[in-house]
Amino acid sequence: MLGGGQLGRMLALAGFPLGLSFRFLDPSPAAPAGEVGELLVGPYDDPALLDRLADGADAVTYEFENVPVEAARRVRALPPPRALELGQDRLGEKRLFRRLGIPTAEFESPSLPALVKSRRLGYDGKGQRLVREGPLEVGPGELAEELVPFDRELSIIAARRRGGETAFYPLAENVHHEGVLRVSRVPAERAPQAEAEDYARRLLDELDYVGVLALELFEVDGRLLANEFAPRVHNTGHWTIDGAETSQFENHLRAILGLPLGVTAARGPSVMVNLIGGVPPLEALLALPGAHLHVYGKASRAGRKLGHVTLVGAPAGVVAAAIRLADEAAGATPGGV
Amino acid sequence: MLGGGQLGRMLALAGFPLGLSFRFLDPSPAAPAGEVGELLVGPYDDPALLDRLADGADAVTYEFENVPVEAARRVRALPPPRALELGQDRLGEKRLFRRLGIPTAEFESPSLPALVKSRRLGYDGKGQRLVREGPLEVGPGELAEELVPFDRELSIIAARRRGGETAFYPLAENVHHEGVLRVSRVPAERAPQAEAEDYARRLLDELDYVGVLALELFEVDGRLLANEFAPRVHNTGHWTIDGAETSQFENHLRAILGLPLGVTAARGPSVMVNLIGGVPPLEALLALPGAHLHVYGKASRAGRKLGHVTLVGAPAGVVAAAIRLADEAAGATPGGV
Repeated sequence: MLGGGQLGRMLALAGFPLGLSFRFLDPSPAAPAGEVGELLVGPYDDPALLDRLADGADAVTYEFENVPVEAARRVRALPPPRALELGQDRLGEKRLFRRLGIPTAEFESPSLPALVKSRRLGYDGKGQRLVREGPLEVGPGELAEELVPFDRELSIIAARRRGGETAFYPLAENVHHEGVLRVSRVPAERAPQAEAEDYARRLLDELDYVGVLALELFEVDGRLLANEFAPRVHNTGHWTIDGAETSQFENHLRAILGLPLGVTAARGPSVMVNLIGGVPPLEALLALPGAHLHVYGKASRAGRKLGHVTLVGAPAGVVAAAIRLADEAAGATPGGV
Repeated sequence: MLGGGQLGRMLALAGFPLGLSFRFLDPSPAAPAGEVGELLVGPYDDPALLDRLADGADAVTYEFENVPVEAARRVRALPPPRALELGQDRLGEKRLFRRLGIPTAEFESPSLPALVKSRRLGYDGKGQRLVREGPLEVGPGELAEELVPFDRELSIIAARRRGGETAFYPLAENVHHEGVLRVSRVPAERAPQAEAEDYARRLLDELDYVGVLALELFEVDGRLLANEFAPRVHNTGHWTIDGAETSQFENHLRAILGLPLGVTAARGPSVMVNLIGGVPPLEALLALPGAHLHVYGKASRAGRKLGHVTLVGAPAGVVAAAIRLADEAAGATPGGV
């Protein structure tokens, strides 16, 4: 696997029961996946390391969308490197959406206010600026996008196996804070599930996709606009570990290994709460009935995703208590949000 | 952890999401848990290895009931070494059941036919002989037990945290073949849940128990007789990974770390099928809707437990198909059952 972050770690934990074992390449010797597999430490574009990574592997994948496309090509990674390449180029991504008939915010002749973004990938809201009054200046490596007064943010996790079998999870409704995901609720109320699946399927088929893909959407006056896709397992799909019949992690592995996809149905209403900057005391968190904790083995740092907790079928009071504990733990870290 | 078999491996997989990491001691360099933690290879009674095992650990436990009691005492393992000691002595175990008012098959003055067993622990039906006609000769290291024409075999998985909090899983109905567990179904129909919990609770409290314990029971004409207990996570509790809100593995870790126990409710009717001697082709097995596969990373060998598959809320036809695949894979191994 290219990348050894928490996504890689959770992929490995889903893969051991299938009899798989894992090797990771990551620039950091402290990569969270190092605890659950062999870790090669070095840059993603080192040919010798890439060859060692792929040596003897049944499949190679990536868990981070900023890995160089050339590296993914060298190791014949799945999802197809073309998906990675498109996902790294916001303008190419929008043009693809448009070509496939998937609605987006206006980006060819946007009105103000507009968001100016670097064309190359940022993440978690980094690399964006809001322009409220003209003139709208867009640099050569940038794109401008009309600011959408959206009603809510949704996302769909989709999987496609070699040969074309697809599966879709129920839509998640997501709440971000300062550009970082805080809470996902599944299933989203009055979810436009069929429309979201239709858009995701167009992407999967166009890219001859293999693996799990996340499509982020805005809902505006009952319409869906595609924001971006990620060619990988996704934070808004973490609820699937406890809340779905088969997790996004297991289905990604099944897909890239050419195995049948698992059932994507929800086991009940789920709420996933990110633990950012701090992990609450376990005594308090695990006392919440039905709380499923997932920590990533990372050192605490303000604003850093350290874990998440998922509640399945929990009463509103329990969900509120989990969010309060997460907020308190975040606040307890110097500089925490 | 003393022991690095599949139980240790599954404990580790349940523990990583809680932020734990693991060190194992096992005589075999091929121990399945070696893939998911540090493996010390050597005998269980090597003091230097035991000290290295326990060095810096928040807790020490065992996953195998034949480890020397002295080793468990040296590393202050939980569950309490007294439970291990009693569990290793079939006669002491029966006397404990009797003292606690838990019914058992007659073992003080048994009629024929009787089972003669070694007093020291065997497992999976090894070390037993059936005596149909007298005289009943019982050696010094043996005990004789009246053969019980039981209607079915049940088991209950119980957990107790330091301080006394307890939790019980729904009763499993178990089918053995040649002394080896083949299938567990949960919840058992018309399950005498309260009676089983009562007996398990007497054991837990008497032993000031900490961790997960399995109590195996026979049902005879509507009465429960205790057969034996295991002071550890248990094969008849493997369904809990997919079929219960919290797995037996996570609850064992929570218990020995002094954390609140997780909810033990079933997510739906579950059937667990052991994979013995061979693992079915994944393409066929994973095509069964709702099939959850768990393989242990062990080399195939006739009669060896290589993994299990759990089906939650599956129709009878799907369950039958899983059992058929397991049987075919077992038969495909030379000497397989």
